[in-house]
Amino acid sequence: MAINTTLTARLGSRHPILSAPMAGIAGARLVAAVSEAGGFGILGGGYGERAWLEQETAKLKTCTAPFGIGFITWSLAKQPDLLHMALAAKPRAIMLSFGDPKPFAPAIKAAGALLICQVQSEDMAREALGAGADILIAQGTEAGGHGAARTTLDIVPAIVDLAAGRVPVAAAGGIADGRGLAAMMMLGAAGVLLGTRFYASVECDGSEEAKKRICAASSGSTVRGVVFDWSRGIFWPAPFTLRSLVNDHSRRWSGREVELMHNIATVTADYVAAREAGNFDIAGVFAGEAVGLIHDIPKAGEIVERITLEAEQILSGRRNSATMSQAVAAR
Amino acid sequence: MAINTTLTARLGSRHPILSAPMAGIAGARLVAAVSEAGGFGILGGGYGERAWLEQETAKLKTCTAPFGIGFITWSLAKQPDLLHMALAAKPRAIMLSFGDPKPFAPAIKAAGALLICQVQSEDMAREALGAGADILIAQGTEAGGHGAARTTLDIVPAIVDLAAGRVPVAAAGGIADGRGLAAMMMLGAAGVLLGTRFYASVECDGSEEAKKRICAASSGSTVRGVVFDWSRGIFWPAPFTLRSLVNDHSRRWSGREVELMHNIATVTADYVAAREAGNFDIAGVFAGEAVGLIHDIPKAGEIVERITLEAEQILSGRRNSATMSQAVAAR
Repeated sequence: MAINTTLTARLGSRHPILSAPMAGIAGARLVAAVSEAGGFGILGGGYGERAWLEQETAKLKTCTAPFGIGFITWSLAKQPDLLHMALAAKPRAIMLSFGDPKPFAPAIKAAGALLICQVQSEDMAREALGAGADILIAQGTEAGGHGAARTTLDIVPAIVDLAAGRVPVAAAGGIADGRGLAAMMMLGAAGVLLGTRFYASVECDGSEEAKKRICAASSGSTVRGVVFDWSRGIFWPAPFTLRSLVNDHSRRWSGREVELMHNIATVTADYVAAREAGNFDIAGVFAGEAVGLIHDIPKAGEIVERITLEAEQILSGRRNSATMSQAVAAR
Repeated sequence: MAINTTLTARLGSRHPILSAPMAGIAGARLVAAVSEAGGFGILGGGYGERAWLEQETAKLKTCTAPFGIGFITWSLAKQPDLLHMALAAKPRAIMLSFGDPKPFAPAIKAAGALLICQVQSEDMAREALGAGADILIAQGTEAGGHGAARTTLDIVPAIVDLAAGRVPVAAAGGIADGRGLAAMMMLGAAGVLLGTRFYASVECDGSEEAKKRICAASSGSTVRGVVFDWSRGIFWPAPFTLRSLVNDHSRRWSGREVELMHNIATVTADYVAAREAGNFDIAGVFAGEAVGLIHDIPKAGEIVERITLEAEQILSGRRNSATMSQAVAAR
């Protein structure tokens, strides 16, 4: 059994499950594990650390399955030559998030790669389609890391309707199991992109302590805001904010951002020191609302298989999402 | 065809579609229309206006299909005898939202009615189950009117897992079409509760101008906060806030709530006058994130039929949510 969609057809993957390009922690190891299991792994090019990108793209030369490379668009605009380094690694797709993709589209197309654009509103989706996006990711506020305010349940049907079948739409934000994949397909999505679920995997380059905190976190224990970005001296353009696990630092500063700015020098020094010491009572673990569904740290390939199997069973009516009997029955 | 679930079995309805007890505007006319079309209408007992409740429950005596009556729990606690007036109308269920249901459960059970509890967190769900709830509504922040912060995609699986098959769970917040019903069933919900979709129906007692604004509103044009409650002199207990259409009044005061309180006397006088004049540039239209999916004002029975038909077609694979080909295919 497999879940074939327009997305798997376009990406050349077996399953409609993409791993998010989590900056710095979605390295070649995770990408290869996801793609070789039949999903579609995307390297976390993030803000564009040149040495890291060189090293990780070199490793991907041995990856036999199609994969992608992702960038933060507004950051890539500062060093656009990194795109050429990425394209030289022969990715099946480049994923751009958070900014105007138009300046980069010609080079991506010329290299024969697909353009995946992550969007958080209809206006961004129109901009992406205008730039020639081949695939849209509709990202809801549930997502870990950077994102915007509208929910997945709101934004996915809105973008599906806007795309009107011209390009596949994948859903992102709040999804970590087969139920979520099945639900998103009912909304018209052709697949899903998962970050936090793959953060808590063996091959993710995140710290073990961060992974453990994700497993231990219950639903409702994340917060979206600017505190962690400002604390590390990164100032994102509106409307983007960052979702992370609630910790001592977010409890201290959320709602007191003006005061944080008055103390920015000491806050940043303390924050950077805490991050280097692996102290996640202060340093942020960037994770999404789906943390409540995540309780273990398996191999990434097992995550792909589990989600596929569960979604297949739910979609084909062989497994029920509740423990209760529900049926579409002829009368 | 019909979608039979544990929820329809328990409520005695044909379809797993409940209309929300929108205070003052979900009157007997809407309730009867929804229930007689095979859904399950719930009267908006709200804050407990005695005369209105007497009048509307009297009208429901001719309703031949099972229906419910809903209350705001913390408000009902101030005049608990209203529950007896409600029970005398022989509802199939009493729905309690926003507060501890325990004090009211014995009278509801003694009258042979079901207890439906709407919850926004696991703790509230445990409290409701402890009080003997027969059905849980897991409400996400997408919902119009009062609610809390967590999203539907987050809270529904969390409450389904917590209920573990003991009681049916219905999903509320951000749902207005068959795609939403089908998606929620994939998450394990046994049905859905819809407010805004039924607001924009012929039989809803809301103003025609408010209904038109709901139809005209696009996705992303609602806001959750305290501005409209404070402006009309109603102060809700935490963590509950109110979602409404963005208008001149919310644009003026959102983020300036402290200043609003410094001017509360004039703001309230202006607000009440605007509401009486039907000026919805100031008065709030309490609506949810699903407004973007709502473009007409049909009869409530037609809404029930449309959603059922669309969900049946999607669930049975006869209609695709996207305009694209997606299939669970054997390999």
